[in-house]
Amino acid sequence: MLNYEQQEKWSKIVPNWQSPINIDTLHTIEVNAQEKILSFDDEYRFINIVNKGNNLQYDGKGKAIIEGRTFDFQQLHFHFPAEHTIDGKSLPMELHFVHQNMIGQIAVVALYVELGEFSKELDSFFQDFPVNESEKDPFSATLSLNNLIASLGSGVYHYLGSLTTPPLVKNVEWWVIEKPITVSVEQLDKLKKRFNHGNAREIQPTNGRKIIHYVLR
Amino acid sequence: MLNYEQQEKWSKIVPNWQSPINIDTLHTIEVNAQEKILSFDDEYRFINIVNKGNNLQYDGKGKAIIEGRTFDFQQLHFHFPAEHTIDGKSLPMELHFVHQNMIGQIAVVALYVELGEFSKELDSFFQDFPVNESEKDPFSATLSLNNLIASLGSGVYHYLGSLTTPPLVKNVEWWVIEKPITVSVEQLDKLKKRFNHGNAREIQPTNGRKIIHYVLR
Repeated sequence: MLNYEQQEKWSKIVPNWQSPINIDTLHTIEVNAQEKILSFDDEYRFINIVNKGNNLQYDGKGKAIIEGRTFDFQQLHFHFPAEHTIDGKSLPMELHFVHQNMIGQIAVVALYVELGEFSKELDSFFQDFPVNESEKDPFSATLSLNNLIASLGSGVYHYLGSLTTPPLVKNVEWWVIEKPITVSVEQLDKLKKRFNHGNAREIQPTNGRKIIHYVLR
Repeated sequence: MLNYEQQEKWSKIVPNWQSPINIDTLHTIEVNAQEKILSFDDEYRFINIVNKGNNLQYDGKGKAIIEGRTFDFQQLHFHFPAEHTIDGKSLPMELHFVHQNMIGQIAVVALYVELGEFSKELDSFFQDFPVNESEKDPFSATLSLNNLIASLGSGVYHYLGSLTTPPLVKNVEWWVIEKPITVSVEQLDKLKKRFNHGNAREIQPTNGRKIIHYVLR
């Protein structure tokens, strides 16, 4: 029986559901979405770029409707190589679009990048970077996540995890877009030369989590 | 700069958002819901009742649509006095309808109970209890949460908190229905005589959380 006179002694041991994970496509749950699950403002507007040492953070504004709930877009950053793997396969890069809603829930839309055609949409993101760590510069650009994702005709993997950098906040909703966009070798090299150590967290154990695979409409 | 060679040393310190809390109605965020935020199967069907020592757990089945997402109803239990307070005011009892969705998110709908008219809907829940701790008995009943809430013409408070018993799992979505339902003195006494110690967790600090007040449709 729970002792309500000694609440400070109650156990707080809970499963540790961290990110990134490997997505094992043989064990995802297939769901045909009845309605549009992910939609975004036509344009996310970017206003600042911050040199985070081993990352670049592009601060911006915009609204997303995720499973019917409104989230504010906060910032975009990247990881290379990609953090999430699919059936053990690693891609060169992963973009994280971080969102938060009014009560504080966090939803990250992850977009894979592979080498291929030059990306016109992303090119301005590969230009001038702040030189020093913690330096924040004005950065003016727009990006349509709707268009980027729609052009892929892709599904999305959805599961509950964490941020992949400290403080590794848990209960983050992950929306990992299945198919990658492309950038050219020259575009990726601009980032790689500048941030040459790589910044992907190690794959974390799934610990019994369920991963849904939605076919996007 | 983050050290990706020593990921095991990364900080995991995050805000501790626990439940229950006091709801300070002067500082809630008023939102007029555009669509129906909470809807439930016409009937939740109960199948078992478990004596949890200082609580009763009524296991059941049913579906809820919460902000457009599907959750499975899992179980109902009670706390007296009520755990959440509104502007410091405590009510005699609070019912917790616990739900979970496919990826593991937890949503609890909390329904206040005050003393007043006899409750026909809840009466079968106040009858025979399993005598011994951990005893589980078959229990057959149905309950329409839709009807219970609709009859109140009530708003709902929404915030991010935790379970109120160990392991105090965080990132639980709370939906605290503003107005109470009633039970008779005799009905409440049946529970109180059997579970006479009370089982309300202490009020937890809000720690900067935002509480939304939705007007339900």
